Amino acid sequence: MITRLSNYFLKTLREDPADAEVASHKLLVRAGYIRRQAPGVFGWMPLGLRVKAKIEQIIREEMAAAGAHEVHFPALLPREPYEATGRWEEYGDALFRLRDRHGADYLLAPTHEEVFTLMVKDIVSSYKELPLALYQIQDKYRDEARPRAGLLRGREFTMKDAYSFDVSDEGLSASYQRQRDAYERIFSRLGVEYVIVSADAGAMGGSRSEEFLLPIEIGEDTFVRSAGGYAANVEAYRAPVPEALPIEGQPAALVFDSPNTPTIDTLVSHTNAVLPRADGREWTAADTLKCVVLAVTSLEGERELVVIGIPGDRDADMKRVEVAFPNCAVEPANEADFAAHPALVKGYIGPVLHGEAVLGTEGTSGIRFLLDPRVVDGTAWVTGANEHEKHVAYLVAGRDFTADGVVDVASVREGDPAPDGSGPVSLARGMEIGHIFELGRKYAEALGLKVLDENGKLVTVTMGSYGIGVTRIMAALAELNHDDRGLIWPRAIAPFDVHLVATGKDPVVFERAEALAAELSAGGVEVLFDDRPKVSPGVKFGDAELLGVPRVVVVGRDAAEGFAEVWDRAGGTKERVALSEVPGLFA
Amino acid sequence: MITRLSNYFLKTLREDPADAEVASHKLLVRAGYIRRQAPGVFGWMPLGLRVKAKIEQIIREEMAAAGAHEVHFPALLPREPYEATGRWEEYGDALFRLRDRHGADYLLAPTHEEVFTLMVKDIVSSYKELPLALYQIQDKYRDEARPRAGLLRGREFTMKDAYSFDVSDEGLSASYQRQRDAYERIFSRLGVEYVIVSADAGAMGGSRSEEFLLPIEIGEDTFVRSAGGYAANVEAYRAPVPEALPIEGQPAALVFDSPNTPTIDTLVSHTNAVLPRADGREWTAADTLKCVVLAVTSLEGERELVVIGIPGDRDADMKRVEVAFPNCAVEPANEADFAAHPALVKGYIGPVLHGEAVLGTEGTSGIRFLLDPRVVDGTAWVTGANEHEKHVAYLVAGRDFTADGVVDVASVREGDPAPDGSGPVSLARGMEIGHIFELGRKYAEALGLKVLDENGKLVTVTMGSYGIGVTRIMAALAELNHDDRGLIWPRAIAPFDVHLVATGKDPVVFERAEALAAELSAGGVEVLFDDRPKVSPGVKFGDAELLGVPRVVVVGRDAAEGFAEVWDRAGGTKERVALSEVPGLFA
Repeated sequence: MITRLSNYFLKTLREDPADAEVASHKLLVRAGYIRRQAPGVFGWMPLGLRVKAKIEQIIREEMAAAGAHEVHFPALLPREPYEATGRWEEYGDALFRLRDRHGADYLLAPTHEEVFTLMVKDIVSSYKELPLALYQIQDKYRDEARPRAGLLRGREFTMKDAYSFDVSDEGLSASYQRQRDAYERIFSRLGVEYVIVSADAGAMGGSRSEEFLLPIEIGEDTFVRSAGGYAANVEAYRAPVPEALPIEGQPAALVFDSPNTPTIDTLVSHTNAVLPRADGREWTAADTLKCVVLAVTSLEGERELVVIGIPGDRDADMKRVEVAFPNCAVEPANEADFAAHPALVKGYIGPVLHGEAVLGTEGTSGIRFLLDPRVVDGTAWVTGANEHEKHVAYLVAGRDFTADGVVDVASVREGDPAPDGSGPVSLARGMEIGHIFELGRKYAEALGLKVLDENGKLVTVTMGSYGIGVTRIMAALAELNHDDRGLIWPRAIAPFDVHLVATGKDPVVFERAEALAAELSAGGVEVLFDDRPKVSPGVKFGDAELLGVPRVVVVGRDAAEGFAEVWDRAGGTKERVALSEVPGLFA
Repeated sequence: MITRLSNYFLKTLREDPADAEVASHKLLVRAGYIRRQAPGVFGWMPLGLRVKAKIEQIIREEMAAAGAHEVHFPALLPREPYEATGRWEEYGDALFRLRDRHGADYLLAPTHEEVFTLMVKDIVSSYKELPLALYQIQDKYRDEARPRAGLLRGREFTMKDAYSFDVSDEGLSASYQRQRDAYERIFSRLGVEYVIVSADAGAMGGSRSEEFLLPIEIGEDTFVRSAGGYAANVEAYRAPVPEALPIEGQPAALVFDSPNTPTIDTLVSHTNAVLPRADGREWTAADTLKCVVLAVTSLEGERELVVIGIPGDRDADMKRVEVAFPNCAVEPANEADFAAHPALVKGYIGPVLHGEAVLGTEGTSGIRFLLDPRVVDGTAWVTGANEHEKHVAYLVAGRDFTADGVVDVASVREGDPAPDGSGPVSLARGMEIGHIFELGRKYAEALGLKVLDENGKLVTVTMGSYGIGVTRIMAALAELNHDDRGLIWPRAIAPFDVHLVATGKDPVVFERAEALAAELSAGGVEVLFDDRPKVSPGVKFGDAELLGVPRVVVVGRDAAEGFAEVWDRAGGTKERVALSEVPGLFA
C-alpha cells in the first residue's frame, strides 16, 4: 500500500497548540494525528486513526487468544442499572447525565459493568456456560474537572473493557490471571514498559486489584516499589504496624506553654528549648502527633468532621484519604467547621484536655478520631493540649488516649519499609494504562445474575473487570518515544512501515522513488510516500521527523548512482544504502 | 478461521421479543445478533459485530476508491458550531442535549457537517488543496419520538457520513457524482436493491438532493416513479401546473344552501341534487375546493394560522406539509384557533363572503391563504361560503378570489403525471438507506470556511454531505432476506461463509467434520462449526436456519460413506455432496 503525501489529509504545524502542556499532546496535534474539538474531546485525522487501529488490532488478537468474545455496547445507557449498583450517584460530577425527550434519565457510560452483567444474566443460565469472558473496544465518557494533557486524560476516550464471569472464587482467580497474562503480552507487543502494582479496588467495590503503570515523570499516579519485588500504587501501600511498647515506667503527661508554634518545626524547636529530654536526644517531628481535621461529606450530603492523628513528620496524603473514605468528598475543615466545634482549639488540637478525652465519639467533642497505624499503644507524643498556646508532652497512646480506629492515610516516603518485608521502597511517578479488578459478586448481586451450579442450585456469579486505555496508551507511547524534532513510534504501532521521501526536482529521482515505493508496497510494506513536487527537502525532512515513522528512506541526488539514505529515527543513525538493498531492510 | 459454537457467545431464542414489530428486529434478536438496551438502543453480540464489520469494510473500500479520507469525530460536541448554523434549535426534540459539570452545553451529534467544516477550515487554505472528501464511520444519536423497528429506526445508530469540499459549483457537482457512483457500487456489492429518488433537501438547507431508497413495504418513505424514469420521494414530487383557463363566459358565483354536508362526499351529492350542471356532467370531489386550516409554529414559538386550498379529491399530505414549512411544527388548527378567528366558519370556509375576500393577508380574516398549484386562474370551484350551511359554486380563481401564494402539499396518487412528462407515476414504499446532498455554501458561510482561489481572492467553499445508515442497511438486508425459519444473508455480508453442522454421537462424524472444518479454514473459508456434543440435530438445524449463514454443510450419518449434505438457504435446495468436493464449493 502506498499513501501519497501529495494527496493525504494532513497538515503539520510549526507551533505547539496553545493549550498543550505535555509532549504527546503537542506532537500529536502538530504532526496531524488529532485535533481538539472541545476540552478533552478530540477529532481523529487519518494518521491518528491508523495508529489507533494498530493498537486495537493487537488488543483484539490477544483478547481472542485469552478466549474473550468481542461484543459492543452503546455509550448511551439508561439510568436504572447504574442506579441498582449505586454508581449513578457514586460517580458524582464525573458522570455525563442527560434526559431524553420523554424525561427518562440516561448517562454516557464511563464503564460498562452493569450492562455486561445484565447481558450475561439474559443469556447464561448454567455453570456449564462459564467461565465466560467478554470485551469491547468502545468510546467512553468521563466529565473530568480539568481535562488536560491531550489524550492522556480526555473526556471522551477509547477503552478496551473486558469482564469475566465465573461460578467460584478459584474460577475468578483463573480468569483474572488469564487477563493479566494477556495484558502482559499486549503491553510487550506494543513496546510499552510497565510495572504491575497492587491497587486499591476503591469505587469498583471489588477485592483484588492491580494496575499496569507506565513509569513516567508526568504520570498522575505515584507508586512505590522495593528491590525485593513489592510494588503498589501509593494509595494501596499499607504501612507495617510496629509492635506495641510497654507503658509502665513512662513519664506522666506534662502540659507546657507553647506560644508562637504555628508549625511542626517551630513546635519541635520550642519543645527542645523548654523541655529537654532525659535521654539527651532531641525531639523531632516524628515525636509529635499532628491532629488533622477533615470534613467528610457523604453522597447523601451529610457533612461529618473527622480528626486523624498522624506523626508530625508526615502529612495526610489526600489521594490516600479519598481511598480511605470511599464515595465521600473529603476536604480540610473550614472556619465554619471550627466555629461549630469550639472544643477544637485550632493550632492546639490534641486527644485530651485536663486528663479527659476530647477527640473520639466518646470524647467531649464527639468527633470521630482515627490514628495512623504507627501510633501503637505505648508510643509517647508531643501534641496539642486543647488550650490556647499549650501543648502536652509524654502523652502515651493506650494510657492517656485511645481512638475510634486506625486509618492509613499518611504520606509515603522514599525508604519506608515495604509491608511484605522486602526492604525499603522507592517512589516513582506512573501513568495508569491498564487496571484489572476482581470485582467479586457486587454487581451480580445488585443485578441478580445467578446461574445453576452442579447441584442445580442457584448461585451468584463472581466477576472480574479489566480495562486498557487505548487512546491513553497511544499518547503514553508518544510521550515516551519522541525527541525534540518529533515522534518516534515503536514499529508495532507506527502508522506506516516506512516514510519514503523523494527530494529535489530531478525526474530520475522521482522515478527511482516511485519504483522503490512500488517494490516495497508489493512486498507488503506500508509506505508513506512524500511525493510532493514543490516542497523543499528541508520541509520534507522536518515533516518526516515530526510524523515519527521509525524508518525514513530519502531518495535524492544519490538516486542516479543507485543509492538512498536510510534513517533510523530511534537509533538516530543515517546510512547510505543501495536502492536495491532497501526492500531487504523491511523483510 | 474456525469459530466453534461449543464456545461462542450466542443464545438463540425460540420466541420473538415482545417489543418487536418487524421481521428484522425479531430475527436479529432471536438469532443472537443484537440485544435491546433501552428503547432504540442496542448492544451488539459477536455475530452482529461480524456482519456490521463486513458492511463497514465494503464502505471503506469504496470510499477509498472514491478518494475520500477517513477521519473520526467525537459523538460529544460543543453547542457553539451547531448554534452558528442554527441546527442547535432546528433539530428540536430530536437532539440529545446535555451539560458538562461547568454548565457548558453539549450535544450528541446527529450529523457532523459543522465540525467537518471547522476541521477543513483549520487545515485547508488554498483552492489547490481542493477538492477534498472526508468521511467517518461513527455512532450517531437522534432522540426519536417513537424508536421502533429495531435497528431500522434507532436512537443510537452507526452511519458513514462523508463531506466534500470544493471551490466551484462544477467541482461540487463532480464530487457529488463521485459519491453517488460510490454509493451505487456499495449497494451493488452489499446486494441491496435500491431506487435513487429526488429528495427535498429540507432541513439540511442545500439544493440538489437524492435519496437511495430500498423498495420495501414497511418503509417509512413513499416514493413515486414513472415508467419513463422519473423517481422522487413523495415529499419532493411537484405537480405539473395546468394552463390557465379563460375567465370570460363563465357563470357568476352562486351561493346555495348546503345543510348536512359535513364531508366532501355529502357536499358533492347535495350539490348534484340541488344544482345540476348545464353540461350534464356530475359534480365530483375534484370540483370542490377544500380549505384546510393549519397551525404553523415557528422555532421561536410563534403560532400562525394558514389556510391551504386543495381540490377536494385530495388531502393535505402532512409529510409534504412539513417540507413546505421547514423548521416549523405544523398541525391542524384546534378549537381554540377557530375560536380566535370567528371569520372562519368551520365546515363552510371559503375564500369569499358576499363578494369580499375573507382568506388571505389582504382578506378580512388576515389569515395567510395558499393554493394548490392545480388551482390556476380560470378554474371554477364549489367551496364554502363562510356562512353556516352555505356553500358557493362557480367561484372562479383569478376572478372571484386570489391567494398569497402556491404550495404543493396535496397528496400524490397513483397515476398522477410525472413532472418531467415521463408518464403517470406509481407509488411505492421505500426505506432510506442513503442520502446525498449538495449543501452548497450554507455551512461554509455560517462557519467562515474560505480559501484563496486562483486569483488570490478569498472565496467561500461549497460542500456536499453524503450519508449511509450502516446499521439500518444491516436491518434492511435482514428484512429483505429471510424466510419463516430465519435469516438468509447475502454472501458479501454473511457473518461466516459456511455453517458446518456435525450431528449425532458417532465419533467418526465429528472427526470427519473436524477435518472438513480444518480444510475449509486452511483455504481461507470462514467456518462457523456447530460442534456442540450434546445438542440434538433438530436444534442444530433450527439454529443453522435461524442464523442465516447462506450455506450450511451437514456432516451426519453419511459421513462414514464420505458424504455431506449441502444446503443453499437462498435457493432452498439440499444436496448430497461428497465430503472431498465440499471445499471446492467455496473456491
